[in-house]
Amino acid sequence: MSQAANPYSRLMGIYREVALLESCSSLLQWDQETFMPGRGVDHRAEQLALLAGLAHRRFTDPLVGELLAACENGPAAPGPAESVNLREIRRKYDKKTRLPCRLVEELAQTTTQAHPAWVEARKKSDFGSFSPWLKKIVALKREQAQALGWQDSPYDPLVDDFEPGETESSLSAIFSELCRGLAPLIEKIADSGRDPDTSFLSGIYPVKRQQEFGRDAAAACGFDFSSGRLDEVVHPFCTGIGPGDTRITASFDSSDFCRAFFGILHEAGHGMYDQGLDPEHYGAPLGEAVSVGLHESQSRIWENFVGLSRPFWEHFLPRARAAFPEALGRVSLDSFLRAVNRVAPSFIRIEADELTYNLHVILRFELESLLISGELDPAEVPAAWNERFRQLLGVEVPDDRRGCLQDTHWSNGIFGYFPTYCLGNLYAAQFFAKARRDIPGLDSSFARGSFSDLLAWLRENIHCHGMRFRAGELVEKATGKPLSTELLLAYLQEKYTALYNL
Amino acid sequence: MSQAANPYSRLMGIYREVALLESCSSLLQWDQETFMPGRGVDHRAEQLALLAGLAHRRFTDPLVGELLAACENGPAAPGPAESVNLREIRRKYDKKTRLPCRLVEELAQTTTQAHPAWVEARKKSDFGSFSPWLKKIVALKREQAQALGWQDSPYDPLVDDFEPGETESSLSAIFSELCRGLAPLIEKIADSGRDPDTSFLSGIYPVKRQQEFGRDAAAACGFDFSSGRLDEVVHPFCTGIGPGDTRITASFDSSDFCRAFFGILHEAGHGMYDQGLDPEHYGAPLGEAVSVGLHESQSRIWENFVGLSRPFWEHFLPRARAAFPEALGRVSLDSFLRAVNRVAPSFIRIEADELTYNLHVILRFELESLLISGELDPAEVPAAWNERFRQLLGVEVPDDRRGCLQDTHWSNGIFGYFPTYCLGNLYAAQFFAKARRDIPGLDSSFARGSFSDLLAWLRENIHCHGMRFRAGELVEKATGKPLSTELLLAYLQEKYTALYNL
Repeated sequence: MSQAANPYSRLMGIYREVALLESCSSLLQWDQETFMPGRGVDHRAEQLALLAGLAHRRFTDPLVGELLAACENGPAAPGPAESVNLREIRRKYDKKTRLPCRLVEELAQTTTQAHPAWVEARKKSDFGSFSPWLKKIVALKREQAQALGWQDSPYDPLVDDFEPGETESSLSAIFSELCRGLAPLIEKIADSGRDPDTSFLSGIYPVKRQQEFGRDAAAACGFDFSSGRLDEVVHPFCTGIGPGDTRITASFDSSDFCRAFFGILHEAGHGMYDQGLDPEHYGAPLGEAVSVGLHESQSRIWENFVGLSRPFWEHFLPRARAAFPEALGRVSLDSFLRAVNRVAPSFIRIEADELTYNLHVILRFELESLLISGELDPAEVPAAWNERFRQLLGVEVPDDRRGCLQDTHWSNGIFGYFPTYCLGNLYAAQFFAKARRDIPGLDSSFARGSFSDLLAWLRENIHCHGMRFRAGELVEKATGKPLSTELLLAYLQEKYTALYNL
Repeated sequence: MSQAANPYSRLMGIYREVALLESCSSLLQWDQETFMPGRGVDHRAEQLALLAGLAHRRFTDPLVGELLAACENGPAAPGPAESVNLREIRRKYDKKTRLPCRLVEELAQTTTQAHPAWVEARKKSDFGSFSPWLKKIVALKREQAQALGWQDSPYDPLVDDFEPGETESSLSAIFSELCRGLAPLIEKIADSGRDPDTSFLSGIYPVKRQQEFGRDAAAACGFDFSSGRLDEVVHPFCTGIGPGDTRITASFDSSDFCRAFFGILHEAGHGMYDQGLDPEHYGAPLGEAVSVGLHESQSRIWENFVGLSRPFWEHFLPRARAAFPEALGRVSLDSFLRAVNRVAPSFIRIEADELTYNLHVILRFELESLLISGELDPAEVPAAWNERFRQLLGVEVPDDRRGCLQDTHWSNGIFGYFPTYCLGNLYAAQFFAKARRDIPGLDSSFARGSFSDLLAWLRENIHCHGMRFRAGELVEKATGKPLSTELLLAYLQEKYTALYNL
């Protein structure tokens, strides 16, 4: 039988073609955010719509269903690698083909209109004008959940888009535990009365020097610039175009050090995951990232666990002082570490510290799962948000701009994504703790500016596997333990006890 | 009858989709030359191959033939706009479907391998190692000509790919006339004994200042940067991605003024043509450029007829002196004009002056048409080249690197393209002469830095028509005269008589 007639090869050929088409879209989107002339936007939208349509039609072609069935019911049982690819392609195929075209189009159209309405509403802090859009989007997402099918909660099939294996119930359990563990630590910090000076983090930070410093740090961590780039954008992201081409981005502010620098470490973490995927499996699930949360764990390891650590700055602070003498020339390592690790309740998630960030995410998870289950009326979101915010963070939300209107996700129809931010932190803590046990002298190598042992550990234990394991399985395989809050809480406890002399 | 059932609308929908796919490829190719990380090249090749295959299959689908036939034989005669679109789509469809797949693939594969062989051969000035490749490519191109069909010369269908309407015989006629006209002028210049000082054109030209100066000049000419960009590359080009997005490129050398600056004017000329196409007709022949030669005329108008003129430099030389005081601080307008317009025989086409450039092109036309007709054995190219070069330019080619190996075209399987360079000059002269007659005070507006009248003339008389007219028809329509060598020769005669005091 020829290669062409083998259903598995044919199936993988189609899947790879779809991946290639999507990678063309990724490049077009990257260009749109970086270099595209302003007036090119309408044409770009047409290009992207065409590519998306081609990829969708190719993947949802009944032929794919026939080939899948032929592989699943073939004479010989598939090998372990084939099984993984078939499992994931089956999962995606079923999800995509279960959605009626009408619903997909209505969601696309509604969110396209809702997004600018949200931008406007946020600017004016006017939830009322966004409320009808949110109501419509929630109704469509509930319809989507119905179409996809669910057992325990209609939120589950939405989470599955981003974090296969997790459910509303599994997330509720681990997030409540995390809340219970974080509360006393945050309280102790508040009660300590210590509020580190962060004034020098605002100052003279010329963009060109920030670009060089950030690029050097990303390269030192292991981001491979011969297979990647760093460019300036308004809203930073990382995009893996394909083997040998992973692009990270940053947003620079000439009077703010943290925004760009920790953003670059974050995106470089994502980028190193993409660069670590097996190029032999490009265009197949075995060459794809496990999940959004697992991807986030890689960014968090470099941004927080490495980038906010003492050994990292033992190496980089002298270099930062040389690059930014006006702002950092006289700042000691202790002052610097206290400043970048300052804990304080704040209204905006993306500006939150390592501790309270999780509470921001948990609040969103709670609210969006209630919206999808129908227990929370979209019109009641501000009241519910503000009340829960008070309970979790102990402060009063001053307006919806700094409250329930701050994130773009819901206006884009993205529900079930928020939990992955918090899962990323939990996975990261567990991976990082294991890597520290496995690699003797990790801290001192960081202090010497060497990060290759950690990257090698991540490559070997996480990146190379692609989607071979679900996130939970991979955590257990890589660390010997199922996911728990234990290691994140222990890490935070130890770190902040020292920083705040608790 | 619904829109979807109307064969003309369906045909145009498919043609537009193909144009959009090709515009995705254009962006990917632009990115490859500008920003793509080095290791992304293999993935990029796969993306481009997929898009090219999709576009080709879509356009050569028998459905397109059926729709074309239905439009051509429909109950109502098509209107004038429809007629143009149908004429051009028919022409392309027939050309593409006449080529056997096997030949297309063999050409692609052969030129992919021949190109690096040519790079190597040129580096070593070793025609022998490239000769077998040239032989194979010429054989395939002859096969292509057979498949496409021809009456007078097998070279004709190859020319038609780039300059529909022209033939070996029409080109021979006009090029011989041009040769006869140029020879005495070039001889007079050589006999004048004057050899202008060009030393200051090499000097301190910092790249950043060149970028700014070039960008400002392109913008002053009318290149719209809100719908375009200028980036640095190794081999400059212009690419029209689509409405609102036209990108030009340049290659900078910090000790050479002319290369980047006149290159930018050249590419901006191409770019302004693309920016002047009717966006309403995007994705249809009425929104496409007439031909390669016509496109070249637009670049030549700005590079040579405007950019090498006295009024242009009356405005720009003071600015150039300010930007590059080290090199140009003490250079007078007369010295500058003589330097940038220096005429002298040289070996490399792309470095040639405005006069001898045409002879370089004519030589290539003569040789490639003999190769395609079978009258010249590919192995005899160096001898034929060197002899003809001596006749045309009066100098002895020192080696094949500076002779028949200098251009990339043949190694890429591109035959029939060279004549468009010379046609571009002829069209440009005729358009420019008419624009000067139509617009009073054009020179003095140039001297004030105002170029909008010329651009408006080009927009109205050339750009807006898309492919409505063939190049020859458009020349006649815009200038009232059929194409001839008269206006190019008159322009050169007048200009160089003054410059060299002949």
